[in-house]
Amino acid sequence: MRTECYITRRAEFSASHRLHDPALDEEENRRLFRECNWEGGHGHNYLLEVTVAGPVDPRTGMVVNLKDLKAVIEERILGPCDHRNLDRDVPFLEGIITTTENLCIAFWEELEEGLSERIGEARLHRIRLRETRDNFCEYFGPGPAPDG
Amino acid sequence: MRTECYITRRAEFSASHRLHDPALDEEENRRLFRECNWEGGHGHNYLLEVTVAGPVDPRTGMVVNLKDLKAVIEERILGPCDHRNLDRDVPFLEGIITTTENLCIAFWEELEEGLSERIGEARLHRIRLRETRDNFCEYFGPGPAPDG
Amino acid sequence: MRTECYITRRAEFSASHRLHDPALDEEENRRLFRECNWEGGHGHNYLLEVTVAGPVDPRTGMVVNLKDLKAVIEERILGPCDHRNLDRDVPFLEGIITTTENLCIAFWEELEEGLSERIGEARLHRIRLRETRDNFCEYFGPGPAPDG
Amino acid sequence: MRTECYITRRAEFSASHRLHDPALDEEENRRLFRECNWEGGHGHNYLLEVTVAGPVDPRTGMVVNLKDLKAVIEERILGPCDHRNLDRDVPFLEGIITTTENLCIAFWEELEEGLSERIGEARLHRIRLRETRDNFCEYFGPGPAPDG
Amino acid sequence: MRTECYITRRAEFSASHRLHDPALDEEENRRLFRECNWEGGHGHNYLLEVTVAGPVDPRTGMVVNLKDLKAVIEERILGPCDHRNLDRDVPFLEGIITTTENLCIAFWEELEEGLSERIGEARLHRIRLRETRDNFCEYFGPGPAPDG
Amino acid sequence: MRTECYITRRAEFSASHRLHDPALDEEENRRLFRECNWEGGHGHNYLLEVTVAGPVDPRTGMVVNLKDLKAVIEERILGPCDHRNLDRDVPFLEGIITTTENLCIAFWEELEEGLSERIGEARLHRIRLRETRDNFCEYFGPGPAPDG
Repeated sequence: MRTECYITRRAEFSASHRLHDPALDEEENRRLFRECNWEGGHGHNYLLEVTVAGPVDPRTGMVVNLKDLKAVIEERILGPCDHRNLDRDVPFLEGIITTTENLCIAFWEELEEGLSERIGEARLHRIRLRETRDNFCEYFGPGPAPDG
Repeated sequence: MRTECYITRRAEFSASHRLHDPALDEEENRRLFRECNWEGGHGHNYLLEVTVAGPVDPRTGMVVNLKDLKAVIEERILGPCDHRNLDRDVPFLEGIITTTENLCIAFWEELEEGLSERIGEARLHRIRLRETRDNFCEYFGPGPAPDG
Repeated sequence: MRTECYITRRAEFSASHRLHDPALDEEENRRLFRECNWEGGHGHNYLLEVTVAGPVDPRTGMVVNLKDLKAVIEERILGPCDHRNLDRDVPFLEGIITTTENLCIAFWEELEEGLSERIGEARLHRIRLRETRDNFCEYFGPGPAPDG
Repeated sequence: MRTECYITRRAEFSASHRLHDPALDEEENRRLFRECNWEGGHGHNYLLEVTVAGPVDPRTGMVVNLKDLKAVIEERILGPCDHRNLDRDVPFLEGIITTTENLCIAFWEELEEGLSERIGEARLHRIRLRETRDNFCEYFGPGPAPDG
Repeated sequence: MRTECYITRRAEFSASHRLHDPALDEEENRRLFRECNWEGGHGHNYLLEVTVAGPVDPRTGMVVNLKDLKAVIEERILGPCDHRNLDRDVPFLEGIITTTENLCIAFWEELEEGLSERIGEARLHRIRLRETRDNFCEYFGPGPAPDG
Repeated sequence: MRTECYITRRAEFSASHRLHDPALDEEENRRLFRECNWEGGHGHNYLLEVTVAGPVDPRTGMVVNLKDLKAVIEERILGPCDHRNLDRDVPFLEGIITTTENLCIAFWEELEEGLSERIGEARLHRIRLRETRDNFCEYFGPGPAPDG
């Protein structure tokens, strides 16, 4: 038995995107994605929350240094995504329909890789991504969900 | 093993209510419910968050179409409850003391029924209902809680 | 010439109300006030902001002591209005259609009277009342508006 | 002397844009607009607040019916701008560099025209447009500013 | 099988602190805690959320009376911590480096003790403590985390 | 007649302080400043909003480049104040009782000096400083207030 805490860092970035599947025809794209498929694209101020879980280091009183967590978020997510078009400018999103769900899954891989050398015993626990003030997505990584 | 996401939609509605148990006398009602029992009733801007969990459809990149989730919330909750008196105007709340806990439980049943035909493999995961800026309730459905 | 600051105190209260003019028939009431006229009433978490303006007392560095401002808001507004029905429980709102505009005007009178003995050289400057997350009203007192 | 109130309605919309002046060369565009000039564009959840000022109608207790104000905002701003590319999809923004300042000025014209037949004695008072959580612009219409 | 809800109460308090380990030299303190170690200390408006879980009492429709939860938070946390220096004024924090993680753990013990006589079958479930608008910590008590 | 906009930049900083007037005795200090006078001090996440007004440059569509405004806020306010004790660490606050009012006035002088070379025709219009979620102060500079 050990004492674990969950520490979260938030960051906002502004990006454009469009939901569009090139394998489908126009009508089907419009039916699936509605106004999110409109040709000129649109955009959001995405609010990202990254949660890391782990034991509290008795020496520092921290799960992970927030400065390190912030640095990884900036390097891996804000750098490639902020003020960008998610569909054309971000190498790790190539070929992905940029729904909030798919963004969470792709961000997880980027962050886990970026954090792996810096967070010692801790682990990436949750990504929460708010797309508008009325919808957000949460992802807890591959594998069975915490409640299943 | 499969990849699951949790997608949440928020909505606000304005309603009045009063905590009052007709089986108890006035004094007991006042002792239990305090100012929430005052005779003229009061009201809130309730902020509702509905979370649906499930695998991400590889064709759409979505757990569930947010437009469908929004439509069910409007049909099942906002339609009957917005600008209403929760104690006298809402058929599915009849006979219920309208605490935030009981509202969550009643909303769960309504939403699960409304979602059942629309969300395929996904499932209703959590209802969060904020009553004031300083208190909110969460409900994960009947059965053992996720942490127990 | 003198240096003035504007100091604001916020408070939330929960109340029910219904927009209804007894001098009009049902149809006319419905046409004017729509869902706000529905018979059972509804409610809000009102967010009130009270702004006082005046010179900064060089002895205290304050326009007015926020504790005094808070006390007047509690005595004059929260006491009579919190967890109440604005249409039937609040003496100073009797006979008033409780739109956000009319509430602001009525609150102004109450607050000005309550503050008059406590705020010395300062003066009530603005009342802002948020009814829902998407609408609020501001009132600067009787007389010509600051921009007109 | 008469009693005036200021009533505000908020709305959020999601759009993409890019700051770019075709009359300037690439280097100059980059120097002026920095990351806002990046070629793929980016986007925001714009939060718009529209304030209307005027006397309170003693019959309704309102400056203007919020439903009318909401309808004009939807027709004039959300319809053309939500889920759109502000630089290529919005007729009334043609030829305009879509800074928050210029959007406010263009929105003013649209809203004033749309409101003119509906708000009687009242007048458009202020447009506030939040682009990100850390910057917003306010515009009070053509003519001298309220403090100058 | 039984029906459980999670009820949360929020409270804000303002305190000062400094991250500093007297067992380490100055350079090591600066390296570990950076600007949080600066000698004069700094401060925050801490936003505390306390979540209690348990079955809904069919008699009251409540997991726990929010007034009781509020009273315990005020007695155990706000009383000792609000407008205080967390490093020198709070007996139960003596000898603790006041990171958000350590505050959560210490608050848990205080709250669990304070709640034990008041919440019947219910149990303390989660403490969430927001230090700034961009970071917060969650703690679910000693023992294995809910997701491990 | 000319077209003016008001552009605002927000920033948060965390600082400690204590309201205390060395010219007064302990009892008088306690009476005036209450818990804000407690000896160990306390702290806040101050939310600062700086508004600049001026004509919109037709070449850029801007009143002032937000990057410049941000740079001045960082250099003049965040640099000296963030993670600091406002009473002992900030040269330009020496000898000042650090109420929100006095902070606004002192920040105005710093910002006006910092902005003077960068904002051309524009002018500093308003400083708004939020100390807690329930109180904030606004300052429009020396001279008669905009409404007086």
